[in-house]
Amino acid sequence: MRYFITQDTPVTEDVLTVIAYLPTKSLHVIIEDKFFFKMSDRNIMRIAVSLAQKSYNEGGCPIGAVIIDNSTRRIIGKGHNTLVQDNDPYNHGETSAIRDAGRQDFSKTTIFTSLSPCDICAALIYMRQFDRVVVGDITNASGNEEALREKGVKVDIIEDPMGIELYAKYRAEKPELDLEDWKGLAAVRKNLE
Amino acid sequence: MRYFITQDTPVTEDVLTVIAYLPTKSLHVIIEDKFFFKMSDRNIMRIAVSLAQKSYNEGGCPIGAVIIDNSTRRIIGKGHNTLVQDNDPYNHGETSAIRDAGRQDFSKTTIFTSLSPCDICAALIYMRQFDRVVVGDITNASGNEEALREKGVKVDIIEDPMGIELYAKYRAEKPELDLEDWKGLAAVRKNLE
Repeated sequence: MRYFITQDTPVTEDVLTVIAYLPTKSLHVIIEDKFFFKMSDRNIMRIAVSLAQKSYNEGGCPIGAVIIDNSTRRIIGKGHNTLVQDNDPYNHGETSAIRDAGRQDFSKTTIFTSLSPCDICAALIYMRQFDRVVVGDITNASGNEEALREKGVKVDIIEDPMGIELYAKYRAEKPELDLEDWKGLAAVRKNLE
Repeated sequence: MRYFITQDTPVTEDVLTVIAYLPTKSLHVIIEDKFFFKMSDRNIMRIAVSLAQKSYNEGGCPIGAVIIDNSTRRIIGKGHNTLVQDNDPYNHGETSAIRDAGRQDFSKTTIFTSLSPCDICAALIYMRQFDRVVVGDITNASGNEEALREKGVKVDIIEDPMGIELYAKYRAEKPELDLEDWKGLAAVRKNLE
């Protein structure tokens, strides 16, 4: 079978969206290995934001994440928040991508997240010993970047303007959902009292 | 339909094991509400350890957890670690029970865990605003009890001798699996080098 996306395929928004929607296990049937080297960190963040957009379209929280192998740049895991979709109190973008990757040695991988990680995900990232985390939005949320660096995880900030705009729109539309996702339903109740 | 477990049923090891194995959603068909008041904290910890034993029997990590509503004492979520069973780098006992409970206000609930919570689960417990955590084993692991208290979560220690023995046996049999579950595969690799 011929690869659908080859080393000659330009890195466009459409291609990045197709990659976001393809199951991770199928990527290596559709995409030639050399193509992965053409994707910059900024491009990979666009995939994380595409996944956030997918979740938003489903009525969920728009936060996505992508994990790549540092040496091959292949995508080994990706996903988005499923609080609404799976009725899951804690399946954040990062958790979802890590679960998609399965049991792996994450010490030579990078996790891209469309939004700054919460306390739980920050603990998950350093306890699973990721080499690096790339954060796409410290405008709508931030706080654990320094703590992650202190734990030995490299942290890069590559803000994605479309991701920031999407998250701000969602937060204005569904402030209670945003609060529940970060702090739990008790915080929502308290807020409404 | 008549309840199979009623307020007159004695709280025995067999009954607690049946409760551990029944799906949470089915408990309230099988068990009369008044029975839940008969179960002491120590009894509920036995259910968490039964779930740990179930996971051990499946070749997985023996850590279980149970969530109860503080006022009705009904079980609203339970589960066990599924690192091996689901190829999931982070579905600890606590996560599994929280996912089983679904989106809930956890501020009037208690989570029982057969083993002291790791950094990730400790963050999950305070961010989801649990009222109380009961820890069944601080012999094989400990460390986050004080941090949880500082975050406003009540912490009780009710050690379960059979749970402690089971975890110690598992750790002696599968030290790499224990290390991976807590620290990730990179720690296992480093340990073998």
